[in-house]
Amino acid sequence: MEQSPIDKLINDVSKLPGIGRRSAQRIALFLLKNKNKNLKPLIESLNLSFDKIDECKICGNIDMQDPCNICLNSSRDQSTICVVEDVSDLWTFEKIGFYKGLYHVLGGSLSAIQGIGTDEIKLEELLKRVSKNKTREIILALGTTIEGQTTSFVIAEKLEQYKDLNVTRLAQGIPMGGEVHYLDENTLNTAFQSRKKIT
Amino acid sequence: MEQSPIDKLINDVSKLPGIGRRSAQRIALFLLKNKNKNLKPLIESLNLSFDKIDECKICGNIDMQDPCNICLNSSRDQSTICVVEDVSDLWTFEKIGFYKGLYHVLGGSLSAIQGIGTDEIKLEELLKRVSKNKTREIILALGTTIEGQTTSFVIAEKLEQYKDLNVTRLAQGIPMGGEVHYLDENTLNTAFQSRKKIT
Repeated sequence: MEQSPIDKLINDVSKLPGIGRRSAQRIALFLLKNKNKNLKPLIESLNLSFDKIDECKICGNIDMQDPCNICLNSSRDQSTICVVEDVSDLWTFEKIGFYKGLYHVLGGSLSAIQGIGTDEIKLEELLKRVSKNKTREIILALGTTIEGQTTSFVIAEKLEQYKDLNVTRLAQGIPMGGEVHYLDENTLNTAFQSRKKIT
Repeated sequence: MEQSPIDKLINDVSKLPGIGRRSAQRIALFLLKNKNKNLKPLIESLNLSFDKIDECKICGNIDMQDPCNICLNSSRDQSTICVVEDVSDLWTFEKIGFYKGLYHVLGGSLSAIQGIGTDEIKLEELLKRVSKNKTREIILALGTTIEGQTTSFVIAEKLEQYKDLNVTRLAQGIPMGGEVHYLDENTLNTAFQSRKKIT
């Protein structure tokens, strides 16, 4: 039996990340109850995004131009590449704003369970960038999950061939504002092992 | 400063009910990372909905035809109208499927705090339907919130003028599968006061 447009809409909305069936129904109703006020602007906004926004072929960022405004910004440090899992991580760095180098978005992290191997993330592209440009430092800003750490390890190993390249990762320890008695065992252990001399 | 299409998209998505800023960002990224696979079908589905779906001018249901398929279905009991707050309530009735009469969607319930008065809900339309047709029963299927009960009370009062009309409301008491020791005071009190003789 063919789906009605209402069922199709609910179905398509429920495919969005973090949206369950009930939320999708609520959203569909919200859109349909006042089509001109709610649905039409959303369609226009999505159409605009579809037309204007592209993935940067160099770094994987999402932007209104390709290459993106970060890759094209010659005032940024071209010799440093910060490797992140996802565009949202890049956005977090940019929001805070202290980092002035380039990025490389992997588009995921290695995961045997989810069947994500080295071909599924943009690893080869990273290696090509490093060999083509005068990259001096690669900062691996991946999560401290098992997948993130595995990915960091694999990338670091592949980068060993570039002798003049510094490969760094984010420091691990107690998050700022964190209280010791709330820390999980792993974090406390890592923070303890990596303790620093202060005087 | 003009908003970029990305910011505009995140903004517009975050206007959907139940979607916060972070979810909106996640959804926007999901859509933009694979435009042809994720964004395009959603745009098409929304366009289809915009073109095909309308609000029924009789009952307020949302459907592909106006009047809706429920209002046009002559095998349904035309003398009974079930009054609901929202289309989602109508859908719940229809999903369960035992009710075979017509509906009237108010589009909200009276609320002094939210500034929803009798002009903001489809009350006048209900009264017109009752006086024009041979309605024998109005079932007030509104929530047992303060707003729902106020609305029921106001509607019942307005319907008093129709002498041959039965105005009913849903029974109130312990929900099926409910355990007495988990009940709130109000429900238990209502259920106790409305107790029924069983032999």
